[in-house]
Formats: sequence, structure tokens, C-alpha cells
Amino acid sequence: MDVIEVILAKRDRGELTTAQIDWVIENYTSGVVADEQMSALNMAILLNGMTRREIADWTKAMIRSGERMDWSVLDRPTTDKHSTGGVGDKITLPLSPLVAACGGAVPQLSGRGLGHTGGTLDKLESIPGWRALLSNDEMLRVLREAGAVICAAGDGLAPADKKLYALRDVTGTVEAIPLIASSIMSKKIAEGTSALVLDVKVGSGAFMKSVPMAQELARTMVALGQDAGVNTVALLTAMDRPLGRTAGNAIEVTESLEVLAGGGPSDVVELTVALAREMLAAAGISGKDPADALRDGSAMDSWKTMIRAQGGDPDAPLPVATETEVVTAPSSGVLTRLDAYGVGLAAWRLGAGRARKEDPVSAGAGVTWHAVPGDSVTAGQPLFTLHTDEPGRVPRALESLEGAFDIVEGGEPDLLPLIIERIDA
Amino acid sequence: MDVIEVILAKRDRGELTTAQIDWVIENYTSGVVADEQMSALNMAILLNGMTRREIADWTKAMIRSGERMDWSVLDRPTTDKHSTGGVGDKITLPLSPLVAACGGAVPQLSGRGLGHTGGTLDKLESIPGWRALLSNDEMLRVLREAGAVICAAGDGLAPADKKLYALRDVTGTVEAIPLIASSIMSKKIAEGTSALVLDVKVGSGAFMKSVPMAQELARTMVALGQDAGVNTVALLTAMDRPLGRTAGNAIEVTESLEVLAGGGPSDVVELTVALAREMLAAAGISGKDPADALRDGSAMDSWKTMIRAQGGDPDAPLPVATETEVVTAPSSGVLTRLDAYGVGLAAWRLGAGRARKEDPVSAGAGVTWHAVPGDSVTAGQPLFTLHTDEPGRVPRALESLEGAFDIVEGGEPDLLPLIIERIDA
Repeated sequence: MDVIEVILAKRDRGELTTAQIDWVIENYTSGVVADEQMSALNMAILLNGMTRREIADWTKAMIRSGERMDWSVLDRPTTDKHSTGGVGDKITLPLSPLVAACGGAVPQLSGRGLGHTGGTLDKLESIPGWRALLSNDEMLRVLREAGAVICAAGDGLAPADKKLYALRDVTGTVEAIPLIASSIMSKKIAEGTSALVLDVKVGSGAFMKSVPMAQELARTMVALGQDAGVNTVALLTAMDRPLGRTAGNAIEVTESLEVLAGGGPSDVVELTVALAREMLAAAGISGKDPADALRDGSAMDSWKTMIRAQGGDPDAPLPVATETEVVTAPSSGVLTRLDAYGVGLAAWRLGAGRARKEDPVSAGAGVTWHAVPGDSVTAGQPLFTLHTDEPGRVPRALESLEGAFDIVEGGEPDLLPLIIERIDA
Repeated sequence: MDVIEVILAKRDRGELTTAQIDWVIENYTSGVVADEQMSALNMAILLNGMTRREIADWTKAMIRSGERMDWSVLDRPTTDKHSTGGVGDKITLPLSPLVAACGGAVPQLSGRGLGHTGGTLDKLESIPGWRALLSNDEMLRVLREAGAVICAAGDGLAPADKKLYALRDVTGTVEAIPLIASSIMSKKIAEGTSALVLDVKVGSGAFMKSVPMAQELARTMVALGQDAGVNTVALLTAMDRPLGRTAGNAIEVTESLEVLAGGGPSDVVELTVALAREMLAAAGISGKDPADALRDGSAMDSWKTMIRAQGGDPDAPLPVATETEVVTAPSSGVLTRLDAYGVGLAAWRLGAGRARKEDPVSAGAGVTWHAVPGDSVTAGQPLFTLHTDEPGRVPRALESLEGAFDIVEGGEPDLLPLIIERIDA
């Protein structure tokens, strides 16, 4: 076989054979197929698409490029969640211990943030002592002790995807549904979970800006999961406005702790409980209602056990940014719009996110908003608090908030429902 | 500016600005834009196309990446030809000295063969002593002495195109009209000719398989030439069957010498004279008819002067392959089809061409055909002679000739006219 033959087939709108897909993934991983050849193929896939069969083969080939983890030694069923990423999306933090407290085992492999969306690992690393890098044996130990583990994927898991993702990132080929779906699902299937709930975000702060695109991505991923024997369902959820009241690292941990303590913003609570119910149902676990586990402290107990098992001190004070800046409401009326992308960009510019993979993030940086769409505000009241360690970052953060909200006298917000749609096999 | 922004613009079917094109060509040449980024952009250009304005800007940016030659010191007007490449296409060899003999100066920068089409430089290198690599000063000296020079393009000419062509070759992005047109025209414009005739081949043995595609390429290139102040016209010519009676290196030189001596196959003579007339007309030269210059020996004199000026011995015997194999006609009838691609592939497999840029070619290898479409043949008569230095190459060459011809009793060939169409500004 020859890589040019594979590129030409997709370039000329053909369907790649299973053998062609296996060959190209195997030889890209080993370095026989060069980056410039794979990027031409990626662009052809982005522009000409792939059939369901091709996407399934592509995903399987990426899984086969590395190890597939196995949790069958555990005495409880595994179940996991993946979010396509949003602003203020700290749901994994309360959700994983909550599901553990209700009888599930959650082997959550997570990522770091890039661009305007934060990363779960970056958030957890604001907890003193907490470690994201665990060996497979350590993962198993934490899962046994706490029922949930949140850590970085090791190098042995879908190495083809790692290489391919880094390439797509620098070649303008990220936004291809076949490549997004296979990237997410190859990692989640290789992770070895037996049930999976996908949180597919829709709106300005998400990858998928429209409901039809999100539906296509969700249906593609649900089919891939079912094909691979992972019981998979998807929720399409709103990302036209940010989730909760905070976007950053330590400040999102604090908000997660409020939820685990039985309080917290209502949208974060509602989504956490809805996803927990789906995760439990997909794994065939019944008995305890997640809403109860938030109220009775058992979810918080799982959290503390999990954080301690990964070297963290759940009771240590969290880092705080050295500087804050308050933005007040310029007029009175109803906050009709709070744009997720604008808020995410502000948090990123304050130091919460990174421009390049090797950049550090600031634990304390981020944005707190004091009103959510639908709230009435009065001119001069605090609308946002910006947190940063570098005051020089404030002006550009303020720029990204300009035009990111509307206050209209007697107005009404036009929002997506928090949970838009449920998609199953 | 940012390369991702440029890739996304073309990926999403936008028109690139002049500034974006200048930036990307400049930064690709210098290495700031990586191969994998350029190949993604190339694939997006191939699939989404470019406007005339974009192609013109792309061409100008490639010319600016290197030097632009200047022949204004010569006392005669410069005029050149470019062929998009075909099988048995030795036209440059008799044509350049012929035009010189009629009063033109021909600064012909040529290439080597890759794949099933031969290269002018490979053919000329079968002449003992002849050198393809000349400095600019040597080019000027040969032009002054002989009126024509055929040599390799130096590294200083359109380096962006050199780098880009090598990349397209390995990434399945060769067949894009904007990229083909800008590649050819950037080199020809940088070469400094004031008039240019394009021989755009159409048919199985050519890049362009259909007349409409060839028309589009020709129109694009004529417009690019005129924009750059080069008086450009194009002929669309037949490449459904090979040109002349030979495909190879030394054997094509021998056929060219027959034409320069006033004989040779009628199609080679007809096309050589037609192209010579166009080259002279485009440069505003009148007076001598090229057909006369073939008859009176003046074209042959120019040839000998040119070969000698580049170190070659025009009277030395040419290399001959050590082995020959004759293929006879399997039946009697009319040869209705002789497929250019099949013949070219056979010559290539016998050693006349190369699979990789660094491979050597055999001077003596190639194919001679003893009948052309329209000829009556008798079962058992010689149809092809295969020439090679390595008898092991014969079986695969025979394979490529199988199915490359039809002999039909009472049949009639269905051929493209030799000169299909003339396209000018």
C-alpha cells in the first residue's frame, strides 16, 4: 500500500477501505507516513467527510495503536462521562465522586485546557499536592479506595490519536466531525469504561455552534460507543452562556465544593445530577439517587477520599489571585445575554488558560460573574470580578467582555434549554 | 498574521487576500510555515479552488521568492515554449534550435522526467559531454553563440515553487489547476522570456485527461503570462497517442536529429513547425519560415552550435541499449488505438524514467513503435521494439503494453486532432 493512494482516494471523494485505514493509522504512528501527508489526508477528510463505517474503522485503528485498559477486577461497574468542553464547565469535579458515592466506578481520563475552554486537570492541580499523573496500578488503587479517579491519559493510550491531535491543532483541521468523534471515542473506549455519557455542548462557547452539528457529532459518537460494546448515551447541553458563576481553576474548584456540600449554582447542580443519573442508568446501577448523595455528604466524602488518594489535601486553602478588578453594570435592566465565548476568552486572557501546550496556567486567575441571564441588575452593581496575578492582563480581558453581555430594560433572555436533547442508540 | 487563519479561510471556501498569499509564500520559503501546514492549505486549494486574482497573486509571490532573469542585453527577442508533458514529446529538442535559426533567442529552462513522461534534460544528457547545469553567465554565452540554450533551472529561480512542488509530489496535491498553473508560470516568468507558447497536452498520456480541463489550465496560464507582461499563447495538442515513433532518451534524440535533417515523423514535424511559428509570432519576429529552416540545414547548424556550447559532441555516437525485444502484431487489421500512457509506462519500466528524483535513468532504454494509429498491420509483423540494459525489466514493460493498443479489421482510429485548439488572450 501507498499513502498517496489513500490520500487520492479520499481527495477524490471515495470511501477508504478498512485495510487502507488500518495501514495509514499504523504507519502514521510508526512514522512511515509523514506529518505533511497525514495533514493533507486530514484536510480531505474534513472537506469530503467519512461514512459511519470509515469513522468506526478509523476509531478502531487508533484504539489498536495502544493499550486498552481493563477494569474487570473491580467489584463495581465502570461508567464515565466526556464533555466536548465549555466555559465554566467544572461538572467532572463534583460528578465523578457523586457517581462513586452512588455505586459506580469512574475511571476518568481527562485533559488540560487549550484556548478559551478550561481543562479539568488544570482545575484540580490548584489543589495543593494533587497529582494528575498516575500509573495504571495507581489508578486501580484510587478507584478501589474512592470509586473514582481523575487523571491524565498515559502515553500508552491511543498514541495515534495523541500524534494526530497535535497535528490537527496546527493545520486547521480540528473542526471535522469524523476526526473529533474518533479522537474522543478512541480514548474513551481504550480507557476501558463499560458505560459512557457524552455531554455535547452547543453554543458560542462550544466547539459545535449549532444544534444540528452537535446532533451529528453526538449520533456519530453514540454509534461508535455501541459498536465497541460501550453503552453510550449523549446529552446535548447549552453553552450559549457559561455554566455556574465562575470560569478559572481554583475558583471552579471552590464552586464544585459548594455543589458537593449540597449548595452551588442551580444550573451546575441540575446538570451534575442529570449526568449522574445517566451514568448510573447506563451502567445498570440503581438504588441511590444522586440528589440525595449531594445532600447527605456521601459525595463530599468520596471527593475527599479521591483527592487524598491522589496526593492532594482537600482541606488546604486554595490559591487566590493577587489582583482583582470589579466590572460594574453600565445600566439597569435585565441581563438578557452573557456570552460563553467572551467570558471564556476573558478568563483565558487573565491567565487561567494557555496559548501553547507547554505554557503554565495561573491557579488563581479567572472570572466570576455576579448575575446570570434573566437576572435584573442595577446600574453600578458589580457584574464581573476579574482575578489575575498580572494586572497587565486586565485590559485585554476587559476587551473580550465588551459586547459579551446585553442589559435590556424589561428584556427577556433567549436561551437554549440547559438540557436540549437526549440521544441514545 | 497566522498560518492557521490562512488555512481556515481557504478551508471555509473564502478568497485569500493578497497579503495572506504573500505572507504564506514568504514564510513557507523561509521555513516559518511548516510542511504539514502548507500541505493542508494545498489540499484545501485543490478541493475549494482559487479565483484568477488569487492565482495571479500566488504566482507573483513565488516569482518574488527568487531572482527574475533579464535578457535585455541580447540583440534579439526572447521566446520560449513550455509543454505540460507527454509521451514521446521530444519537441523541445528540434524546436529550440529551429526558432534560433529563424531569429529568436530561446532561454529554455527544462526539467527531468518523473513518472511515465520523459524529461528534456534526461534526453539531452544521452549526448556525450553535454551539461545541463549552467551558470547565468554560461546561459548568456550559449544564447549569444547558438541563439538557444536548454538547461536546468538554478536554485535561485522561484525557490518557493521548488519546495512546494516537492511537497505536492508526496501529498497527493499535484492535480490542482491553480497550483499547476502558478508552478509553471512562476518559473517561465522568472526565466525572463518576453514571449511564451504553451503546449498543453490532452489525453491518456497527459496530466489533463479532458479538453475542458486543458482549456481551463491553458486560459489560466495565458492570463497569468499576459498579466506579467509575457506575450503568451497556448496550443491544446493531442496526447491520446504518443508523439513520433520513439519514447526514451537517446532514441528520442535520434528522432529529433531526423527532424532537424529535414525528415522525421510527420506529427513531430507538424507540431514543431506550428509551435515555432507561434513562438516567432509571439515575439514579433517575421522573415524566415521554420519549415524552410528545417530543409536548408540552418536549424541543424543551430543545434550543433548549441550542443557544442554546452560541452556536448553532436557527432558522437549515441548510447544504445544492450538488449532489444520485438513485440509482433497478434492479428491483422488497422491499428485503431495506441495508448500514450501505456507506451510511456513501458518506456519508464524499461529504465528510461525514474521512480524517485534521485534515481539515474538509462540513456539507451525506451520503446520504438513501428506503426501508428491508422496504419494497416499484418499478424506477425514487428509492432514494438523494446530497448533496455536490464532484460529483467522486459516482462513488466510488456504488461503495460498489453491492452495499450487495438487492431481491428477494417477499423478506423478515433483520434484527437494533433492541434486541437489555440487559446490566446
